Amino acid sequence: MMLIDSERISRDIETIAGFNETTPEIGFSRPTFSPAWRKARDYVIAQAEAAGCKVRIDAAGNVHARPAAIGWDEKVWLSGSHIDSVPTGGKFDGVVGVAVPLEVLRAAHLAGRAVPLELIVFAEEEGTTFGIGMFGSRLWVNREGPFAENGDDEFFHQFRNRAGQTYFEAGAAHGVRRGDLAGERIEPEKYRGLIEVHIEQGPAMWAEGTPLAVVTAIAGRKQYKVKLLGVPNHAGSTPMRFRNDPLVAAARVICGVDEIAHKHGPATVATVGKIECQPNAVNVIAGTVRFTIDLRSPDAETLETCHRQIEELVISSYHNFNFLTTEDPPPVRMDAGVCAALRRAAGGTIVETVSGALHDAAILAPLLPTAMLFVASKDGVSHNPAEFSRIEDIAAAARALAELVGER
Amino acid sequence: MMLIDSERISRDIETIAGFNETTPEIGFSRPTFSPAWRKARDYVIAQAEAAGCKVRIDAAGNVHARPAAIGWDEKVWLSGSHIDSVPTGGKFDGVVGVAVPLEVLRAAHLAGRAVPLELIVFAEEEGTTFGIGMFGSRLWVNREGPFAENGDDEFFHQFRNRAGQTYFEAGAAHGVRRGDLAGERIEPEKYRGLIEVHIEQGPAMWAEGTPLAVVTAIAGRKQYKVKLLGVPNHAGSTPMRFRNDPLVAAARVICGVDEIAHKHGPATVATVGKIECQPNAVNVIAGTVRFTIDLRSPDAETLETCHRQIEELVISSYHNFNFLTTEDPPPVRMDAGVCAALRRAAGGTIVETVSGALHDAAILAPLLPTAMLFVASKDGVSHNPAEFSRIEDIAAAARALAELVGER
Repeated sequence: MMLIDSERISRDIETIAGFNETTPEIGFSRPTFSPAWRKARDYVIAQAEAAGCKVRIDAAGNVHARPAAIGWDEKVWLSGSHIDSVPTGGKFDGVVGVAVPLEVLRAAHLAGRAVPLELIVFAEEEGTTFGIGMFGSRLWVNREGPFAENGDDEFFHQFRNRAGQTYFEAGAAHGVRRGDLAGERIEPEKYRGLIEVHIEQGPAMWAEGTPLAVVTAIAGRKQYKVKLLGVPNHAGSTPMRFRNDPLVAAARVICGVDEIAHKHGPATVATVGKIECQPNAVNVIAGTVRFTIDLRSPDAETLETCHRQIEELVISSYHNFNFLTTEDPPPVRMDAGVCAALRRAAGGTIVETVSGALHDAAILAPLLPTAMLFVASKDGVSHNPAEFSRIEDIAAAARALAELVGER
Repeated sequence: MMLIDSERISRDIETIAGFNETTPEIGFSRPTFSPAWRKARDYVIAQAEAAGCKVRIDAAGNVHARPAAIGWDEKVWLSGSHIDSVPTGGKFDGVVGVAVPLEVLRAAHLAGRAVPLELIVFAEEEGTTFGIGMFGSRLWVNREGPFAENGDDEFFHQFRNRAGQTYFEAGAAHGVRRGDLAGERIEPEKYRGLIEVHIEQGPAMWAEGTPLAVVTAIAGRKQYKVKLLGVPNHAGSTPMRFRNDPLVAAARVICGVDEIAHKHGPATVATVGKIECQPNAVNVIAGTVRFTIDLRSPDAETLETCHRQIEELVISSYHNFNFLTTEDPPPVRMDAGVCAALRRAAGGTIVETVSGALHDAAILAPLLPTAMLFVASKDGVSHNPAEFSRIEDIAAAARALAELVGER
């Protein structure tokens, strides 16, 4: 019988929060490969070893820990998340998904058991250190695309930390070995599947009183850059009938994007979060307006329909525009079998949801049967020191994971 | 018979354009009290003296030139504008209104006449050097308000040039004498009225084939700062039904402001020219959005109606807002008698218009019978090196002014 102890989980979360470049009042900052990040990783490794695990760091910089009694070639469950943070973020994002399998390994060890579970700590999930997210998981997993290039490609030179170092330069002191990437790529046959526990980072579960939810899909995302090119003019001496104000056109697009998302059901979202206007002066009609659009849906067809509607909206709103798709990851369905196993393990009553945010699980899903378990976030606040999840909900996630991996 | 010579006017405009801090390709830059501005002023003074004028600089820094045969106490017409420019502006803004009366004085001198005309060059009209427009005319004219304080007030310390100098510090080398301000204020009984010639800086006259127009009113202006205060949230994990996006609300206000202006006739304009969004990231729902509104109308009642409608629009668009009026100069009616005299002088066929932009004429109008004569601007482009007006239109303005001042 494994006994999950919420106080031990809480201590892990608080200890990791203590490894912080900034101060708790302004937030928690652990850039990948920074001293604070390294101390947090060392702490997780020490805790895993104390729980009877052997630990290795793969060539991409991800930490793996298994009970010492289970060989690296045996087929086990994989569970983990990340300990890097956005600047001045919260205590829970990523860390919860590391603390939960760590507690399961510890509880099993204390019960004298070696559970078929490998803890993984993915490196650079947030993307705020090097400019692109899920760096560690992509390097470990991808067999095609730029991340499969083993770091020799020009592609990697564009992503640098604030010191100007590439991932491979900065990671060398932390176990990253560019030359070994190809040889150490994931071997899917060694895993039953991946379960990533994560806070929801949205308001729905908290508002609806749902502590845990099984994620059935990770939304696909389309991001766009839009530029509307007009001519700046004097706000006083240009009659309305002579105007072709790109900021008014941008405003129509912003309203229209909002309407499109509302029309396509509760799991589809669209956001204009960034806007820049030139010359941006009180008494000058805008010359150029640039803004972004972020569209997400777990359903590929809905994503495509919304894409077409947004494109038509931009085309019909201004005569001189530029519409560029900058990101286009498709929706990722979670594995139905793993989702069902998680539901059973959690007691059968938990709800299903979709993830609007991307996670390492989306990178692993094409190779391993994958699911996610979400824990409610207070008021949906995330990437913020006010980020909060209840320890009892996190412990419930640990019990579900323990139940699932202990089934056999 | 005074013979207006368009080549002389053209030479004045080109010579003044040559006094430039930057290069013609990027524009024409003459900050008030800069070496380029001083050379331009010296040139105007030398030209006026060559045309038989005596010249004085008032304590506010404005240049006055009258035919030597006419005493400073005689009642004459006043005509002029400014030679300071916005950074990288055009050749015509302000300069046309100086070159025209200069040519009238010169043509009269060559014809052996002393016309009852005083040329004035107002200092710091644009407001881009010290941060507030019509500095020289306000100091010369205002008998109440902060500009009547003779420069001793705290008020003046907030306006500084890029070297950190106040108007009085920077102007001392150019004839500004703070101690003499009160004694040298305008004496309205010495003037029949003011005629300011200026380029339209809007597209209407050019588009409609109108080279000259009499300005019957200068629009009143209300400027606002609006702040919408929401909470930033994750663009992926916040369902539409949980959002209260201040950028969507701002977009509705921008569209609504545009509609309000369109509904209130051809002389009313409203512009959102400046917007700032925080945190301004592609994947974050806006937390705070700030934008400005600039509303203008030559009709006080229309201005008030639009003000109320805009205020209601902001109130109904977002729950947590800040709505601040930052500027509120009322409309200024031009003098009907001077307008009629200008129409007669111009041949009776010229149209009437209103000025959406503010000018020194608005400052003088409460004290002197005032009117403005607009010259068409190509495509309405202004504050830009592409600013252009036809020399034949400018010469027609000079002929109208010569006719008017030569009437007696």
